[in-house]
Amino acid sequence: MSETLRYANQQRRAHLSELIEFLRIPSVSTQPGRDPDTASAAAWLARAMSAAGLENVRAIPTRRHPLVYGDWLNAGSTAPTVLIYGHYDVQPAEPLELWETPPFEPTIRGDYIYARGSADDKGQLYIHVKAVEAYLRTAGRLPVNVKFIIEGEEEIGSANLHEFIPQNRELLAADSVLISDSAMLGPGKPALVYGLRGNCHLLIDITGPSRDLHSGTYGGGINNPLNVLGHLIARLKDERGHILIPGFYDRVRPLTVEERELLGTFPLDEEKWLGEAGAPILWGEPEYSLVERISARPTLDVTGMYGGYIGEGTKTVLPSHAHAKISMRLVPDQEPGEIAELFEKFARSILPPSVSVKMRVAGMSRAALLDRDTPTMRAAAAAYEATFNHPVVFMREGGSIPVVNQFKSDLQLPTVLMGFGLPGDHIHSPNERFYLPNFYSGIETSIRYLNLLRQTS
Amino acid sequence: MSETLRYANQQRRAHLSELIEFLRIPSVSTQPGRDPDTASAAAWLARAMSAAGLENVRAIPTRRHPLVYGDWLNAGSTAPTVLIYGHYDVQPAEPLELWETPPFEPTIRGDYIYARGSADDKGQLYIHVKAVEAYLRTAGRLPVNVKFIIEGEEEIGSANLHEFIPQNRELLAADSVLISDSAMLGPGKPALVYGLRGNCHLLIDITGPSRDLHSGTYGGGINNPLNVLGHLIARLKDERGHILIPGFYDRVRPLTVEERELLGTFPLDEEKWLGEAGAPILWGEPEYSLVERISARPTLDVTGMYGGYIGEGTKTVLPSHAHAKISMRLVPDQEPGEIAELFEKFARSILPPSVSVKMRVAGMSRAALLDRDTPTMRAAAAAYEATFNHPVVFMREGGSIPVVNQFKSDLQLPTVLMGFGLPGDHIHSPNERFYLPNFYSGIETSIRYLNLLRQTS
Repeated sequence: MSETLRYANQQRRAHLSELIEFLRIPSVSTQPGRDPDTASAAAWLARAMSAAGLENVRAIPTRRHPLVYGDWLNAGSTAPTVLIYGHYDVQPAEPLELWETPPFEPTIRGDYIYARGSADDKGQLYIHVKAVEAYLRTAGRLPVNVKFIIEGEEEIGSANLHEFIPQNRELLAADSVLISDSAMLGPGKPALVYGLRGNCHLLIDITGPSRDLHSGTYGGGINNPLNVLGHLIARLKDERGHILIPGFYDRVRPLTVEERELLGTFPLDEEKWLGEAGAPILWGEPEYSLVERISARPTLDVTGMYGGYIGEGTKTVLPSHAHAKISMRLVPDQEPGEIAELFEKFARSILPPSVSVKMRVAGMSRAALLDRDTPTMRAAAAAYEATFNHPVVFMREGGSIPVVNQFKSDLQLPTVLMGFGLPGDHIHSPNERFYLPNFYSGIETSIRYLNLLRQTS
Repeated sequence: MSETLRYANQQRRAHLSELIEFLRIPSVSTQPGRDPDTASAAAWLARAMSAAGLENVRAIPTRRHPLVYGDWLNAGSTAPTVLIYGHYDVQPAEPLELWETPPFEPTIRGDYIYARGSADDKGQLYIHVKAVEAYLRTAGRLPVNVKFIIEGEEEIGSANLHEFIPQNRELLAADSVLISDSAMLGPGKPALVYGLRGNCHLLIDITGPSRDLHSGTYGGGINNPLNVLGHLIARLKDERGHILIPGFYDRVRPLTVEERELLGTFPLDEEKWLGEAGAPILWGEPEYSLVERISARPTLDVTGMYGGYIGEGTKTVLPSHAHAKISMRLVPDQEPGEIAELFEKFARSILPPSVSVKMRVAGMSRAALLDRDTPTMRAAAAAYEATFNHPVVFMREGGSIPVVNQFKSDLQLPTVLMGFGLPGDHIHSPNERFYLPNFYSGIETSIRYLNLLRQTS
């Protein structure tokens, strides 16, 4: 293994220039105008996986963005098989004017590479492609069997992978799953994520009059859909963070005393965290700690809202339409489909007959809670500690990786969430970046983990 | 006068082609990117006024958009002087995709000319330029002295004209004011507007975190400015149209029994009006009639709102900013400056410390109520009736013409609001249009009115 680690270190410059190529492709999955780019990112990745020595590499078409599959299954039938998951799609880069350098022109400043998708998730998934290459170029073989399944719809709810998994159990058969799409606690401080929130993202379109009206001539006699949207939003969640949709909390699994104790030991520096967010003060459900609020409690956030005249200056209109995008982060055992129904039923019950409404589901995923005490978790902790020389922390993460729950429920696989991001990576925000020392240490950690995995069989 | 009327009728084709030129200029006053166009519209109008025979024509610079002045003062010192007001600026044309033909490519379909500004107010103000021309080309003189003061900021609150008036009392000295910037009741049904609402248009910017955050990683621990904006809007006005800002109604002059009776006789076809608006049902303060709600009661409408991700699809962000534009239509004797202060005080008292807020006034004007029983009103009614052969209706209008109140308070002038628009003109909306028979009848009416005015002195 030492030769493999040495090879990886010698190849840093090549690995970085390949990552830069990958990051140049604006594979924004939610924007149909970018569909040629997501296709091109999938094709680029397939070529890179082949070049690394993976076999059976292919881009598998779906109704939207292709999946990329590849494997290396020559470690023998007694060796375990690890399924490595990641995603090549990225969040929209807007607002573009807030980027210091363009989101799809990767730029290195200090120890960071700045680009949309650098930390989430191109940089992290590419770590494992390069770990495979290092083994195959030095030892000519891997210590375990590996399969890669990389999707292009993680940022929009993984609907097509969700259908693909139960229809392709044999192709995806494995002993465990490895995912790098989360963050460490800080530089040099590795963290294994054992909990993820789910998500239910809805699009609300409220229509009042059939066209924008003069706000003087009609104001007072026609209901205004923007005012109506304000009332709706106010009635979904109170000002202290408690969600008011009837039935919303019914399936929320209460936090156990043991878990609240564990979360209580989590070394979150609240001042530093607040500084990172740039908000005036902390906020949220008073009866829960900050760590609980941001990882173990459900939320409801308006992610986008618009209507009427949004250009410079003013226009005296009573607008025809009001639009909102609303994301609810979910915890075990909330069911996203049920939450969407409860939302719609409640919204329809309070919206007045002076407007009409259309609601659509833009993305849904279940929350996941992983067993912390498994052989793969122990191997992951050991690989991390050997690389970073620092004990591992277990944490719950407030974000979502839609497919994690399904790997457990459909394929009965334990998952390891071994992240190499950092809290200040600005994922989903302008100036997303990836800490380059973690890119290289990540490859080392992956090499060590694959070696340790062999002993878990 | 009959020769003058004949001339006007013979020149219809020329008058229309001039109007088309005027309408081609996208003089959107609220958009700084259009400043060269507002300047060009002012210059075009000054040339047209000179060509019509007006004297002392000039574009007077202000801090923003120029005023255009011109006069003809040779009717003698015993003849009355009429000050004709109008505006060459127009509302933004957005959303452009809803226009059947481009807003600044005037198009004639049937009896209408379609273009932004056609009814509001270029087409209407140009009527009086052409009436002057008809007199000067035929009789060589006008029956009264006339002064034109045409501004480029009506759609943004007339701030610079507001300052100009008290500083130029002599230049603007007159016996009455004539304005064509309102609508008749329907084709062939003239209406004199005797009431206008005021306006107080505010811009609200709410900031939470200093950048857009990942809604999973931060959601639950940081307050979301879009949710906060929803709560604010819900607390400004209840769902039946009653405004909740403390003190808002304190100065509202109660409707007299006599005026409620007059408004009750106003021939508004509610079904037709609703169909025109394209809304599912009528709405508003239950204790007031529709006519009262849309003309004699104050309102609060969100005219524009945006924040977070507003592109296609979704982005899981907890946004940094939320923005709203809010217009309050005012009635006598509300003071717009005081209303802005009450709004700001109330908003600040309910906004939580987890966000910061900036509020700016984008436009303010007082409401106006005109005396219905004056010599000029009677002359206007007679001119209308001679042209349209139909009795005149007196009405209050829900829109605002900021300067009307000031002509009364600063210059002690009676104003006549002699409109030639129609209720279906879609002013401020896509597909604004002007009824061409009213353009030509308007010129006739103006010719008759100037003649009748001579007898009021």
